[in-house]
Amino acid sequence: MKHLLSITDLGVDGIEDLLRLTDSFVEVSERAIPKVPALRGKTVVSLFYEDSTRTRLSFETAAKRLSADTMNFSVGTSSVKKGESLRDTVLTIEAMGVDCIVVRHASAGVPWQVAAWVDASVINAGDGWHEHPTQALLDCYTIRRHRGGLDGGRVAIVGDIKHSRVARSDVLAFTALGADVTLVAPPTLLPPSLEGWPVTVSHDLDAVLPKCDVVYVLRMQRERQTEALLPSLREYTARFGLTPRRADLLDADAIVMHPGPMNRGVEISAEVADLPRSVIVDQVRNGVAVRMAILYWLLGSGVDLVAVP
Amino acid sequence: MKHLLSITDLGVDGIEDLLRLTDSFVEVSERAIPKVPALRGKTVVSLFYEDSTRTRLSFETAAKRLSADTMNFSVGTSSVKKGESLRDTVLTIEAMGVDCIVVRHASAGVPWQVAAWVDASVINAGDGWHEHPTQALLDCYTIRRHRGGLDGGRVAIVGDIKHSRVARSDVLAFTALGADVTLVAPPTLLPPSLEGWPVTVSHDLDAVLPKCDVVYVLRMQRERQTEALLPSLREYTARFGLTPRRADLLDADAIVMHPGPMNRGVEISAEVADLPRSVIVDQVRNGVAVRMAILYWLLGSGVDLVAVP
Amino acid sequence: MKHLLSITDLGVDGIEDLLRLTDSFVEVSERAIPKVPALRGKTVVSLFYEDSTRTRLSFETAAKRLSADTMNFSVGTSSVKKGESLRDTVLTIEAMGVDCIVVRHASAGVPWQVAAWVDASVINAGDGWHEHPTQALLDCYTIRRHRGGLDGGRVAIVGDIKHSRVARSDVLAFTALGADVTLVAPPTLLPPSLEGWPVTVSHDLDAVLPKCDVVYVLRMQRERQTEALLPSLREYTARFGLTPRRADLLDADAIVMHPGPMNRGVEISAEVADLPRSVIVDQVRNGVAVRMAILYWLLGSGVDLVAVP
Repeated sequence: MKHLLSITDLGVDGIEDLLRLTDSFVEVSERAIPKVPALRGKTVVSLFYEDSTRTRLSFETAAKRLSADTMNFSVGTSSVKKGESLRDTVLTIEAMGVDCIVVRHASAGVPWQVAAWVDASVINAGDGWHEHPTQALLDCYTIRRHRGGLDGGRVAIVGDIKHSRVARSDVLAFTALGADVTLVAPPTLLPPSLEGWPVTVSHDLDAVLPKCDVVYVLRMQRERQTEALLPSLREYTARFGLTPRRADLLDADAIVMHPGPMNRGVEISAEVADLPRSVIVDQVRNGVAVRMAILYWLLGSGVDLVAVP
Repeated sequence: MKHLLSITDLGVDGIEDLLRLTDSFVEVSERAIPKVPALRGKTVVSLFYEDSTRTRLSFETAAKRLSADTMNFSVGTSSVKKGESLRDTVLTIEAMGVDCIVVRHASAGVPWQVAAWVDASVINAGDGWHEHPTQALLDCYTIRRHRGGLDGGRVAIVGDIKHSRVARSDVLAFTALGADVTLVAPPTLLPPSLEGWPVTVSHDLDAVLPKCDVVYVLRMQRERQTEALLPSLREYTARFGLTPRRADLLDADAIVMHPGPMNRGVEISAEVADLPRSVIVDQVRNGVAVRMAILYWLLGSGVDLVAVP
Repeated sequence: MKHLLSITDLGVDGIEDLLRLTDSFVEVSERAIPKVPALRGKTVVSLFYEDSTRTRLSFETAAKRLSADTMNFSVGTSSVKKGESLRDTVLTIEAMGVDCIVVRHASAGVPWQVAAWVDASVINAGDGWHEHPTQALLDCYTIRRHRGGLDGGRVAIVGDIKHSRVARSDVLAFTALGADVTLVAPPTLLPPSLEGWPVTVSHDLDAVLPKCDVVYVLRMQRERQTEALLPSLREYTARFGLTPRRADLLDADAIVMHPGPMNRGVEISAEVADLPRSVIVDQVRNGVAVRMAILYWLLGSGVDLVAVP
């Protein structure tokens, strides 16, 4: 594989291979000097058309631990503001000699366009409401570490499914690995059609929670209120927020996940976010190892994962 | 010691130890290749909730000379804008695997909060009007290089004491090392109470200058004028600015210091800033070596300061 | 040479030496690990008072391939906003221990001022409408690679000559190497006087194109329209845009250049920018190698260009 654009490109075997490879990089991350020379001399550039310090730093950390050089093409101060086309920007970046472009863009499909223009590897770090495959992989990895596997697992994804690339990639990955997925949302926050999605839909969180192994809470953008998709955030919280009362409906060993950043008090209450069953910080930690695995997989050339000299 | 939050945590012995250690890093900085591998594989992240390219670059330079990786969590483009709590931001950063968080925040006490939440080392790079311990250490080091020591030295700190974390940390460090400190300011720019501060107060700069070994001029924020704490900047300069006439009142070997950035023509005149007795550029230079010493002290593990291979 | 401020400082021999040295760095850039340890321990800082991700990243990439450390003093968030003088900013940066300052500034002459204040090497990365010597060197290199040399070559520079530092540096470099240069522009976009410029002037692009080996198209700033220097962009395109019809007037082996970022559809049509004869992406690629040569020339100390261990 040259690019990582969608979960569907990977197939079950690809996902499994990447999760196994991630184990090696979790081990590297726990060393006293958590670096390997695997990508020495490679350059990874982040090209983010939407702000996300969190995701960008996760990729940068992953690249640096593999000894790659990193560059950040921040769009706010770039030639994009001077009217340059996306294609010219991308060709310019590639001409400087980069090996991998990590792209985030507000429009679905942009990473595919970029991949068609360049010889470098392209990683989709989020395109519109479409996909966010590295998030789905770190979510799978986190569930596997806490629950042993996805096969037969019951996952509820709660919140603004309609505008969520995380939900789309997670549904693809979780169901590929054999999980049963239930989407829980008000009708206004579901996609117009769910035809072909291998999921169950519910509008009643209280009924779903007792039958879950994993509750995946999505971030609620405050903008949805002004867009009239929600009567009010307060009402959303009352019906779909993961409150302590609702968390008590969960099985003893069910886990709570969130892609971050959290709006504590909106989609998840502060107390629930801090429960031992909340593995949200683990998701961030695993994110670095998963991205190391992906970068190594796309750019590595069989170099052993020996320690940096 | 795990964190550097306040000068008071260090005690006299701690300050002396750090200043001695700084000598080694001044030597390293003068090598043809001014790098040592002491912090290879460590990651230092700067988490600045207030802009300060100057302080951030000083820490970054120090970290890179120790072969650490550096990351910059710039708040302007981060999840903080998306409503994430300080604690969640900090836990996210730590989960990516950082060894040291350098924090600047507009509120006093934030670095203590951060230190309570994480296993990583925390350095206070300025919290509100409260403390700025690394500035105080580089100031002590600069005075020692130019005057041999602080013990018995007479230091005047001139300007906006009330809103100055530099003044608070400097008073703690200078008096701990045995200096006599006089604060010179208009009454509106002094703290409401100075009880317990081991200092003398004066409103008459002309009377203080002839009896000084060190004049430490604080930056005058232009905002103080609009806040009605000053009749006008011009009047401030007339009464408290370090003009050439006033500099002539100083002993031949007295030195002039300033934490930067200077407002030439306001708190210090351009001519005085450029006198040989002004050691303001030396403060910046020593700042890098002091911060190398601090990072090495908090994160190093006894590795010798050998040259990078 | 200690600084690179203007093409005129180099002379013909200097330009030729740098272009020959660039060949070595093109070879380095094509290696599996495109890095050499030549500038290990050196620090290169970019001090850009005008946004330019493109040029800044080119210098950063060049510095990293030479194993130098890089720092970015971004003026938007710096002490400059707090009223610090240019000289104090520069002295502060130097005191942190930098070896080379890459300066871009909206005012002509600033890089000379900076060079007078510091011991570090200074590279002019564009000063006002005055000079941009590294762009001229990469343009010479690109022409040489595609056409064998500049001597006797016929180059047309088309567009907003008046406000273009690229045009000024290119005229100096191209004519020094023996090219015949024709400037093609409307009278409002030519400098008030061209006395002493060793060039021909034309207002008729169609007449010039058949007699060109190289057409160098300058970026048209949209602001020129609001400044009433142009009746409209549409009219500019009609008279001076490099359209497919005009490109057909060129010799079979004539090349098209542009410093980027392009305004496709204004000064150059999308179809022409994508012709095989357009070497615009090559210019970007060669820019990194030329900047490696310049950094090595200013800061290197005879270290062989061996592979990074």
